[in-house]
Amino acid sequence: MIKPGIPKGTRDFGPVVVRKRNYIFQTIRETFEVFGFQPLETPAMENLSTLTGKYGEEGDKLMFKVLNNGEIYNEAHQAKDNKELVSAITEKALRYDLTIPFARYVVMNQHELALPFKRFQMQPVWRADRPQKGRYREFYQCDADVVGSNSLLNEVELLLIYDTVLTKLGLQGYELRINNRKILFGLAEVIGKTELLTDITISIDKLDKIGADGVRKELQERGLTGADIDTIEKFLAIDGSSEEKLAQLKELLQSSSTALKGIEELSFVLNSGYATFHTTPIIDVTLARGLNYYTGMIVEVKAPATVKMGSIGGGGRYDDLTGLFGLPGISGVGISFGVDRIYDVLEELKLFPQTAQQSTKVLFLNLGEASSRAAFSYMMQLRQLGVAAELFHEPAKMDKQMKYADKRAIPYVIILGESELQDNLVSVKNLATGQQEKISGAELISYAF
Amino acid sequence: MIKPGIPKGTRDFGPVVVRKRNYIFQTIRETFEVFGFQPLETPAMENLSTLTGKYGEEGDKLMFKVLNNGEIYNEAHQAKDNKELVSAITEKALRYDLTIPFARYVVMNQHELALPFKRFQMQPVWRADRPQKGRYREFYQCDADVVGSNSLLNEVELLLIYDTVLTKLGLQGYELRINNRKILFGLAEVIGKTELLTDITISIDKLDKIGADGVRKELQERGLTGADIDTIEKFLAIDGSSEEKLAQLKELLQSSSTALKGIEELSFVLNSGYATFHTTPIIDVTLARGLNYYTGMIVEVKAPATVKMGSIGGGGRYDDLTGLFGLPGISGVGISFGVDRIYDVLEELKLFPQTAQQSTKVLFLNLGEASSRAAFSYMMQLRQLGVAAELFHEPAKMDKQMKYADKRAIPYVIILGESELQDNLVSVKNLATGQQEKISGAELISYAF
Repeated sequence: MIKPGIPKGTRDFGPVVVRKRNYIFQTIRETFEVFGFQPLETPAMENLSTLTGKYGEEGDKLMFKVLNNGEIYNEAHQAKDNKELVSAITEKALRYDLTIPFARYVVMNQHELALPFKRFQMQPVWRADRPQKGRYREFYQCDADVVGSNSLLNEVELLLIYDTVLTKLGLQGYELRINNRKILFGLAEVIGKTELLTDITISIDKLDKIGADGVRKELQERGLTGADIDTIEKFLAIDGSSEEKLAQLKELLQSSSTALKGIEELSFVLNSGYATFHTTPIIDVTLARGLNYYTGMIVEVKAPATVKMGSIGGGGRYDDLTGLFGLPGISGVGISFGVDRIYDVLEELKLFPQTAQQSTKVLFLNLGEASSRAAFSYMMQLRQLGVAAELFHEPAKMDKQMKYADKRAIPYVIILGESELQDNLVSVKNLATGQQEKISGAELISYAF
Repeated sequence: MIKPGIPKGTRDFGPVVVRKRNYIFQTIRETFEVFGFQPLETPAMENLSTLTGKYGEEGDKLMFKVLNNGEIYNEAHQAKDNKELVSAITEKALRYDLTIPFARYVVMNQHELALPFKRFQMQPVWRADRPQKGRYREFYQCDADVVGSNSLLNEVELLLIYDTVLTKLGLQGYELRINNRKILFGLAEVIGKTELLTDITISIDKLDKIGADGVRKELQERGLTGADIDTIEKFLAIDGSSEEKLAQLKELLQSSSTALKGIEELSFVLNSGYATFHTTPIIDVTLARGLNYYTGMIVEVKAPATVKMGSIGGGGRYDDLTGLFGLPGISGVGISFGVDRIYDVLEELKLFPQTAQQSTKVLFLNLGEASSRAAFSYMMQLRQLGVAAELFHEPAKMDKQMKYADKRAIPYVIILGESELQDNLVSVKNLATGQQEKISGAELISYAF
């Protein structure tokens, strides 16, 4: 008899945690819906041909592949190396993110879809990453994307979704940091080294980690001249209000039409006057976001500085995502919520409301048959009204039943003893206050539990 | 460029379907909650050691196994046969049902749990079955189980959950068929052939498929004598009201104390007078349910006869489930909802309410900047009130915007033309009736969309 366990990097979610997680999911889902986004669900397994090569070599390695069913012995033994072996015995893998399945869905349903298609998707994904604090092998992604529209109104709407959800969750002091890939490209263009775009962005992305000197050092190693680095440092020194930052960017990058386009896009998003934010987005010129497929605005949500958590969400605009599946020229823009991190933030700041932690409200003590029969009819009426009610399963000793109520954190206990039954009354005991009162059955049904 | 697709037996769920499915899930979840059941979620992947051997040979075959990550070439080549190969390169498999992971969870958390533990779980499971109409390789199970209580009140509660959910869903004419494993065992005992219990149950389970003669023939082949079969046919002939059936069972099986116990349990569930059902459960002595681990009451829910669908749910009491993981002597009883089939039934009977099909309520036409700015402020107010609202993403031709509203089945369109803006009014057009009215901004916010 081996002791039972679960796979590395996976989790069981017990009742208390599920309820709190559902509170977050529900808040995000409601917001997506009122913003006109539509739910989509795709299978946990995708064909390998759909996923392979979409996440880089690293991704192919970290994908969980599903073994073909039936006999695989011969196929396996004809394989000459690991690569051949794996492709001989697997043809499916677990969802690695929600974006590629979404693109696959759009291409498969392009003739039925009304474009722009605004979809949201909240499902688990699986990655064979080395498990560590806050990084799991099974975790939920919550994405909202718009495909088939180049309008910057989508960028504004998606930033408003962040603003709305995080405000609804009671978060304060978070930051919506935005930048534009065209500006970063423009910087490389001004320097005359667009081929080093990735090197440059990777380095400046580390500014708050390794500091200005660190960045300078790294840029030198990556083959940039002193003059290049001077320009980059001017870029990094850009500061002030959004208007001031935009002005400085315009001046520094005026020779790049791409940069100017990016600056114009940023200023539209910030100053379009379409929306009023609870927390105004701020420009962060060092923000790069790893994924190279971003081509326009990029955004990252930083948790309140009071909690050491870093990014709790991010996204941006990408061109031609569905081109991977033979449908070119469809632009997309999307955002993602990091639910596990948001959970930890709300937990640390004690922001989960009582309602997110409610379980059974009322326990009817089991005092034998007559009492239980009466309890049942009350119980069914309360349940009809949405009040979660239970009858203890057996006529056990009082303290055993009370212990159950306590362990389950049930706030009210109802006693239907002989005297209560005789007078058609019920005794309601509030376990928090210890107060007990006798009320009529009618009062019980309208009781404010 | 290969045409994108999804694995055999899996499905994408588009917006319309997701909403209808969520309506079913939500109805079931709410009912579970008010009955005092608590949510549990377990990982999609379980260790093979947890799952292997729990579902019979068939189950082990139909399990989706996950390939170990990293180099597997050498392990694979040392394997002498298929079995060795598979166990050398896999250590995880996808969840095959919700019951075994639940048992595993209970054992792992036995010291924290307040018993009886009433849990519900609604998650997908995966089986490599041959796909066919109504049978998928990825499908949801919705289970409610109670462990740690022998009280028959649990059976009553679980039957009430079926009754409540199906009534809430507007279903009529469904049947709650119940039986008790002890009665079937008692029948075999009375015949004196308990070793043939499975053969007997399998045969009589087929009564409505192959008819009385078919059953007789099969019983003969399975080695039962004419006298045995006479008794069995007396058993199958049992008929009338529940009281009458119980009386006839008592008479026929009086020599089996096990049968009498089962009869007593059935009569408690039916006549305890604890609960009032919308649809009273009926005794079906031929009901056996495949799974051999059932030891007490068994239940099966039959869809209304008007739809050819058969069972839309089932369950029963099983003893010692957690014994598999080293925690013996804990009894359990549970039920399961067949959501895919319930979906088809509601679809066929047109029972999905409008609210389960609601998407965006209001589309603001995009008539340029000034109009869009005004639209945004109205839109954000409506969204705050929970009204899903959108602004068309670009100032396109009117008919293009109207076509989008039509394709998305958005019921209301709002026009903010120059005249409206001037007079601080909005024009609301009901696309179903074609009626259009001019109202004030304040009226719009309180409009009954």
